[in-house]
Amino acid sequence: MKKSAAKTFGILTSGGDCPGLNAAIRGVAKAAFGIYGMKIMGINNGYKGLIEGDVKILNPEDVSGILTKGGTILGTSREKPFKVSKGDDASTSSIKVDAIKDTYKRFGLDCIVVLGGNGTHNTAALLKNEGINVIGLPKTIDNDLYGTDITFGFHSAVDIATEAIDRLHSTAHSHNRVMVVEVMGHNAGWLALYAGVAGGGDVIVIPEIPYDIDSITRHLKKRAKGGKPFSIVVVAEGAISVEEAKMSKKEIKQKRASDNSPTAGYRIAKEIETSTGMDVRVSVLGYQQRGGAPSPYDRVIATQFGTAAAELLHLGDYGKMVAKENNSIIARPLEEIAGKLKLVPSDHTLIRDARFVGTCFGNE
Amino acid sequence: MKKSAAKTFGILTSGGDCPGLNAAIRGVAKAAFGIYGMKIMGINNGYKGLIEGDVKILNPEDVSGILTKGGTILGTSREKPFKVSKGDDASTSSIKVDAIKDTYKRFGLDCIVVLGGNGTHNTAALLKNEGINVIGLPKTIDNDLYGTDITFGFHSAVDIATEAIDRLHSTAHSHNRVMVVEVMGHNAGWLALYAGVAGGGDVIVIPEIPYDIDSITRHLKKRAKGGKPFSIVVVAEGAISVEEAKMSKKEIKQKRASDNSPTAGYRIAKEIETSTGMDVRVSVLGYQQRGGAPSPYDRVIATQFGTAAAELLHLGDYGKMVAKENNSIIARPLEEIAGKLKLVPSDHTLIRDARFVGTCFGNE
Amino acid sequence: MKKSAAKTFGILTSGGDCPGLNAAIRGVAKAAFGIYGMKIMGINNGYKGLIEGDVKILNPEDVSGILTKGGTILGTSREKPFKVSKGDDASTSSIKVDAIKDTYKRFGLDCIVVLGGNGTHNTAALLKNEGINVIGLPKTIDNDLYGTDITFGFHSAVDIATEAIDRLHSTAHSHNRVMVVEVMGHNAGWLALYAGVAGGGDVIVIPEIPYDIDSITRHLKKRAKGGKPFSIVVVAEGAISVEEAKMSKKEIKQKRASDNSPTAGYRIAKEIETSTGMDVRVSVLGYQQRGGAPSPYDRVIATQFGTAAAELLHLGDYGKMVAKENNSIIARPLEEIAGKLKLVPSDHTLIRDARFVGTCFGNE
Amino acid sequence: MKKSAAKTFGILTSGGDCPGLNAAIRGVAKAAFGIYGMKIMGINNGYKGLIEGDVKILNPEDVSGILTKGGTILGTSREKPFKVSKGDDASTSSIKVDAIKDTYKRFGLDCIVVLGGNGTHNTAALLKNEGINVIGLPKTIDNDLYGTDITFGFHSAVDIATEAIDRLHSTAHSHNRVMVVEVMGHNAGWLALYAGVAGGGDVIVIPEIPYDIDSITRHLKKRAKGGKPFSIVVVAEGAISVEEAKMSKKEIKQKRASDNSPTAGYRIAKEIETSTGMDVRVSVLGYQQRGGAPSPYDRVIATQFGTAAAELLHLGDYGKMVAKENNSIIARPLEEIAGKLKLVPSDHTLIRDARFVGTCFGNE
Repeated sequence: MKKSAAKTFGILTSGGDCPGLNAAIRGVAKAAFGIYGMKIMGINNGYKGLIEGDVKILNPEDVSGILTKGGTILGTSREKPFKVSKGDDASTSSIKVDAIKDTYKRFGLDCIVVLGGNGTHNTAALLKNEGINVIGLPKTIDNDLYGTDITFGFHSAVDIATEAIDRLHSTAHSHNRVMVVEVMGHNAGWLALYAGVAGGGDVIVIPEIPYDIDSITRHLKKRAKGGKPFSIVVVAEGAISVEEAKMSKKEIKQKRASDNSPTAGYRIAKEIETSTGMDVRVSVLGYQQRGGAPSPYDRVIATQFGTAAAELLHLGDYGKMVAKENNSIIARPLEEIAGKLKLVPSDHTLIRDARFVGTCFGNE
Repeated sequence: MKKSAAKTFGILTSGGDCPGLNAAIRGVAKAAFGIYGMKIMGINNGYKGLIEGDVKILNPEDVSGILTKGGTILGTSREKPFKVSKGDDASTSSIKVDAIKDTYKRFGLDCIVVLGGNGTHNTAALLKNEGINVIGLPKTIDNDLYGTDITFGFHSAVDIATEAIDRLHSTAHSHNRVMVVEVMGHNAGWLALYAGVAGGGDVIVIPEIPYDIDSITRHLKKRAKGGKPFSIVVVAEGAISVEEAKMSKKEIKQKRASDNSPTAGYRIAKEIETSTGMDVRVSVLGYQQRGGAPSPYDRVIATQFGTAAAELLHLGDYGKMVAKENNSIIARPLEEIAGKLKLVPSDHTLIRDARFVGTCFGNE
Repeated sequence: MKKSAAKTFGILTSGGDCPGLNAAIRGVAKAAFGIYGMKIMGINNGYKGLIEGDVKILNPEDVSGILTKGGTILGTSREKPFKVSKGDDASTSSIKVDAIKDTYKRFGLDCIVVLGGNGTHNTAALLKNEGINVIGLPKTIDNDLYGTDITFGFHSAVDIATEAIDRLHSTAHSHNRVMVVEVMGHNAGWLALYAGVAGGGDVIVIPEIPYDIDSITRHLKKRAKGGKPFSIVVVAEGAISVEEAKMSKKEIKQKRASDNSPTAGYRIAKEIETSTGMDVRVSVLGYQQRGGAPSPYDRVIATQFGTAAAELLHLGDYGKMVAKENNSIIARPLEEIAGKLKLVPSDHTLIRDARFVGTCFGNE
Repeated sequence: MKKSAAKTFGILTSGGDCPGLNAAIRGVAKAAFGIYGMKIMGINNGYKGLIEGDVKILNPEDVSGILTKGGTILGTSREKPFKVSKGDDASTSSIKVDAIKDTYKRFGLDCIVVLGGNGTHNTAALLKNEGINVIGLPKTIDNDLYGTDITFGFHSAVDIATEAIDRLHSTAHSHNRVMVVEVMGHNAGWLALYAGVAGGGDVIVIPEIPYDIDSITRHLKKRAKGGKPFSIVVVAEGAISVEEAKMSKKEIKQKRASDNSPTAGYRIAKEIETSTGMDVRVSVLGYQQRGGAPSPYDRVIATQFGTAAAELLHLGDYGKMVAKENNSIIARPLEEIAGKLKLVPSDHTLIRDARFVGTCFGNE
């Protein structure tokens, strides 16, 4: 890939909504316009717009005043052009990829900047293989993107979840209840871990540590005996029991279908109630964790990622994802990242620290 | 009932958690201590503590610094001493009432101040009939307490729900989705109405106005046609369809059991999805609407209700609930209130105002 | 004035920034567009734009998504066309008024909707005398507008000020300090009173109650003696001492110039420090009280005022200000309002309630 | 220093109030009680209490529920036992140090854990020289503590300042004004830099980069010419002009005394107004930046610092400050830290990033 500065580039946001998308778009665009004099094409609705050629010129006024705004001015979708779904003709994907190449050529793009999470970067790596210049920016509230210490959106979600946990504390205390709070995180427990520690969770259940319900109920009973018959249990939606961890995906599905609990939070709540007779209530935080204005932390990091992307564009240094490593902003080849997940290591320092202040992870 | 100033009184909080309980306790207590020199007995866990004689002396330092705190320093329960549940012996209730009278006498109480909602005040009216002096303070996030313009807790809940709706807007917009937000309110739609208007809800469904799903989908399709394929639908948990409104409670229960939607929000979401093919997501706000620090509005009104109760105690003017009427704090006999609900009148000005800015209530 | 429905009207925002202006503009416009099919001209920068003919057509998309936004999409100014400033030629005003009439005629306006506070409504009443149709909407964070129970903007400012007071509490407590918080309010103490009660202020000083510094220091010393050597003193910027209350404006100005305190908060802090030797710090909240997103309460009331204005336009019922009276939205003739201020009555129930929980107003 | 586990230790908080102090105390104490079974003595009001022997036993219930609380349950002071102030007898200090040694011995302390900023750690290093075991935890909203990437309190202050800047934006925009926001930071500009970037500041002035007023006004005029006659100028309280940077401290003091501006924000506002004729307003954020509940980020990091301190106590690894370096929690010898400040390097990546999105630092 030759290293020549981009003159015109496209930009798109892909995957779930996430605080900081607009801040990052603004970061890329302000630097690209103001410092490098580039031309920017906004691609609507993620890879869908790239396939359909749904593209518009972005002007400086389009990115003015969007730093603090939730959502994305470009729209987003979950379109994965390389994925062949069940029942689809195998040619569907190659038709889409051809369409992408056509859009890329037709609008004279030198590169596409993609803002997204794991799926988005997997696609980006595949597009790179197809000879398309791509630069990735890591966004996701789950913080499970491999190759970067942090993604923008994560700390905003931690703030929202922690505020909710703070509110539930007073109710747990007033009613002598166990409140189960379910936060997002199918594969990775970063959000549950951070919000759980920040919110003073008494139990934190993350997908990386299969839980033993006896461990949890033992902890809750011990607290009750010690004069605290109220507790907060923070559960990631991908929580899994030690029994389930030994099963196949199909077996898990069957088991869960039969127990009639819509989600992990309800499942664990029922197990606690059955085992302890305590009064338990569930709160599922849901989509509010993904929306709204980014936190100051995320505005800063999104701005940094954005301006770093502009510099890569200027250097013609394509095929990379911008990342944070320690205190530096760096860039990593997409192929190092694609197909990997950043999970919470079971010996992560924050798990140990949380245990030190009395938190149970369901495996003690 | 003779009108003599209370020297010693008990205070309890009953029913669901609600922001402002501590602010109201502080209001009563600071005035009772500082202005009138009364003695206060804190009764733990609502009417349960009154039955069990679970009572402690409250001192000035106990109510210092609690103005802003969520929950209740006294604890709460849903105990209803006059209620005879299925299977209970009919004498259960009279045993409880006798126990209450015993506690009342044993601790030398001249009156009991009860903070609660409808159930709490129904009980208070029955205790009054039993010759016990009671003063009620109206709390509930539902604002459905008859006899007062406003209850403390309501505006805090509106703030929390509105903030959540604000967040969901960005996601609805970014994904061109319909976001259904379910807020509390089994009988009354005040919370859905106020948070819906404050959050710019495109559709608001309240229990008082049975919804016609065609009316809702017509509205959403019209918005989509006009370039807004995203919408916010605010649903009170007690929402009911026009078909259901014609059924018996039993028939409704059977119908709902068969459709496999856990709550009203999910039910309406499925109906919208089926009828329009739009992308719909649900967020159930849940218990966070009840917890946490009271809003400034609620701290003020709870303080006012509290000090008004202290004055009634001083006047020996028992058997009443403190209330807000227009811009005044007044007191109403408990028998005027008991057994009634304050629902949203279908011609309420805010419904008309909301229609004026384009909101659909499902019956247009 | 004949009663015929407006077909085309202008709208402007005037005076200081205030949360809820955009919500109110949206309320007027959505109803005017959607219900009545009117044409709307947006007048830029308050009366300045009316004089200069700085007018643009408002379209439905201009008012979409602005419910939650701070500031005003129309811009504002403090222009008072009828005021003849010192040194100005007396004809300046009549030239301006003629220019307003010209704009009014040129753009075919049937009415002008003005959103503002006291100054704005004084001007509106004078324009009415000149034969121009005007409808006023009451906005101000000070809540000092005569003829309405509440203005939009007020409760947002109370929320902001209370949150600041909450923060200062922890510092007062940790350092055993007196923290003086200065909030806005030159003439009226509503904001200081409400935020003071909501924030648990130990002393509240408002313009309507001249303060005796001895009363304040007595209260602070008593608290210190009782084990609370920390206190919060909430001061409205228009606070005045009993000595100053007897002076002419000129004498006050001279006195204050010599004592080198920039504002009321600093003045009172110095007096406390001198008299008690306590550690005192000052925080002036300033412009943040006027800006940012409106609170849910203000969004609702601004929407209600806005749709009420649209209805008056439809009825051709001009020359009035929309207002809240008890629980109703009403309209009052501008001449009833002009030139008057709504101050805090010294026997206001909230002052009494605040005293009941231990607050000192500097005159006890 | 022999390495033996502490059995009893003291803990104190010193210097200005800062969000996260209670979270850190809780972190140390929960681990010390629950994991190591140590005995903890709470020392009141910082080094003052250490001198005076104002010490109490801390029990587990004392640190329960304080994670989210602002301030410090131990109280704080600015006492510096080694400092000999003007006019003090030189022996004052040695008397104080002897008193500290006495307290240390009398209460059987094996170590003192001190939570504070630069001054606190300078004192800690001197106590270490006197043979007292000390462990330091880095707190300060200024983030200027040498030897750690981050201090707790900093991100809470960034959140508060950013929220205020967000509010001021709407007013700047509505009035076409320049709003100058003064944030804390006498020596270091970290807070101004982060809040400035997060808040979209158009100009950021930090102590580390002396400002040329012409550079600032050039930038503001250019914005106005480009259609943005509104701007946000974020000023650290320690801002200094290029002229002042060449003067002695005494000369600076004289110069400033004559220009009658109480603080840096007012000084720069006046310079802008004089030079451009623009409408400028100032907001000084003040003490609210120091108070209130810690942000989730700060609760996490404070908990981590706290538990790390407990582990050092257990290891008998004294004389160090806990610190964050990259993604690890480490400990550094106090003598490496004492007497140093962590300032913003002029080539810091965030300064470059901010310039990329159009921010002026007053030296371009």
